[in-house]
Amino acid sequence: MLVTIPKFNNEKLLEQAFIHRSFINENQKTGLEHNERLEFLGDAVLELIVTECLYKKYKEAAEGELTAYRAGLVNMYSLAKVSSMLGLNDKMRLSKGEQRDDNSKARLSILADAYEALLGAIYLDRGLEVTKEFVYDTLMPELVDIVKYRLYKDAKSNLQERAQEDMSVTPIYKILKESGPDHSKEFIAGVYLDDVLVAEGSGQSKHEAETSAAKEALKVKFK
Amino acid sequence: MLVTIPKFNNEKLLEQAFIHRSFINENQKTGLEHNERLEFLGDAVLELIVTECLYKKYKEAAEGELTAYRAGLVNMYSLAKVSSMLGLNDKMRLSKGEQRDDNSKARLSILADAYEALLGAIYLDRGLEVTKEFVYDTLMPELVDIVKYRLYKDAKSNLQERAQEDMSVTPIYKILKESGPDHSKEFIAGVYLDDVLVAEGSGQSKHEAETSAAKEALKVKFK
Repeated sequence: MLVTIPKFNNEKLLEQAFIHRSFINENQKTGLEHNERLEFLGDAVLELIVTECLYKKYKEAAEGELTAYRAGLVNMYSLAKVSSMLGLNDKMRLSKGEQRDDNSKARLSILADAYEALLGAIYLDRGLEVTKEFVYDTLMPELVDIVKYRLYKDAKSNLQERAQEDMSVTPIYKILKESGPDHSKEFIAGVYLDDVLVAEGSGQSKHEAETSAAKEALKVKFK
Repeated sequence: MLVTIPKFNNEKLLEQAFIHRSFINENQKTGLEHNERLEFLGDAVLELIVTECLYKKYKEAAEGELTAYRAGLVNMYSLAKVSSMLGLNDKMRLSKGEQRDDNSKARLSILADAYEALLGAIYLDRGLEVTKEFVYDTLMPELVDIVKYRLYKDAKSNLQERAQEDMSVTPIYKILKESGPDHSKEFIAGVYLDDVLVAEGSGQSKHEAETSAAKEALKVKFK
């Protein structure tokens, strides 16, 4: 991703966006503040930006559909993904314990929150329009796929619907690989249509891995 | 309330804010659209305006506290109250059935939604700054009391805490009056501190009436 974070007038706000609560707990005398208040603000900024975009883009969609699209776009997984692409993983200030634990769901949540905190900081420092541009450049490109491949629905039921409609078959899932220690398992799931492996996906539970495989199958088979 | 609705460039947006789904169901050939999409937008506009205000006003409050304040300010009851004060009850276009049923919880919900739809319409027509001023003039005055009297907490437990702290007594509730037919009951509850009736409240259930009495007691006894 070639997008860069907008230039800040007050660099301290930018710095604060990347400070996790755990860092403050470990470094109490720095006078720094963690990013949770900025995240509280950024969450609302993001909600308005996405809501306005959906309202204007999908003029025929009812409120319920718009809500589903929004939930498909704004969730821990998508925000953590954008956050990673922006390199926030390397910018975060975490406690030593949190630094080690870099492959967990907790890390996804930290990354997602950091993206929201960053939006809060941009909004305070540069205003709504600059924040809007930044969201359009970073998160919004995901939207087209989400609506096109119905990714806002549960991916497994979505794939089942599509496979029934188009091929009259039911998807079958198999766990292809299981690795890692008990507290940090990693699963690879494969999804089969008519006995052919069409996609794989990974995750920290079987369900997550299957869902990820289903999403991939929707993209490769039902464009 | 002397506040008026801002002047609209596109009067049709304003009109749409007051059209309930039930009116469209009964009048299908008008070509009009109901207010649910505007409400979807207005909800997000309101969330940002309130969140930013809280962020800036309560600089020492943690995210959890700010969330509680926001929930105390933005809820069906407070939005319906503001909506009534603005006279939206008379502006709403409802089905004949909904028009008759003017004292129910459903009506509160319709009024609250209409306030959000109105905010969505103002935002589209006049922009964020004008909408912000309107929210500051209409809803925000409630905020000071909500924080001061801790109304963001459940009022009954709040009153119990305060009565214990300040007077070492426990509030006692009595239902003073019960009226109306089964599907539309109205209760009046009184709350007593040390055998003295300090406040009354009304509602469609005993719990609602007691909560309303507790809120009133907080205002009159624990300023």
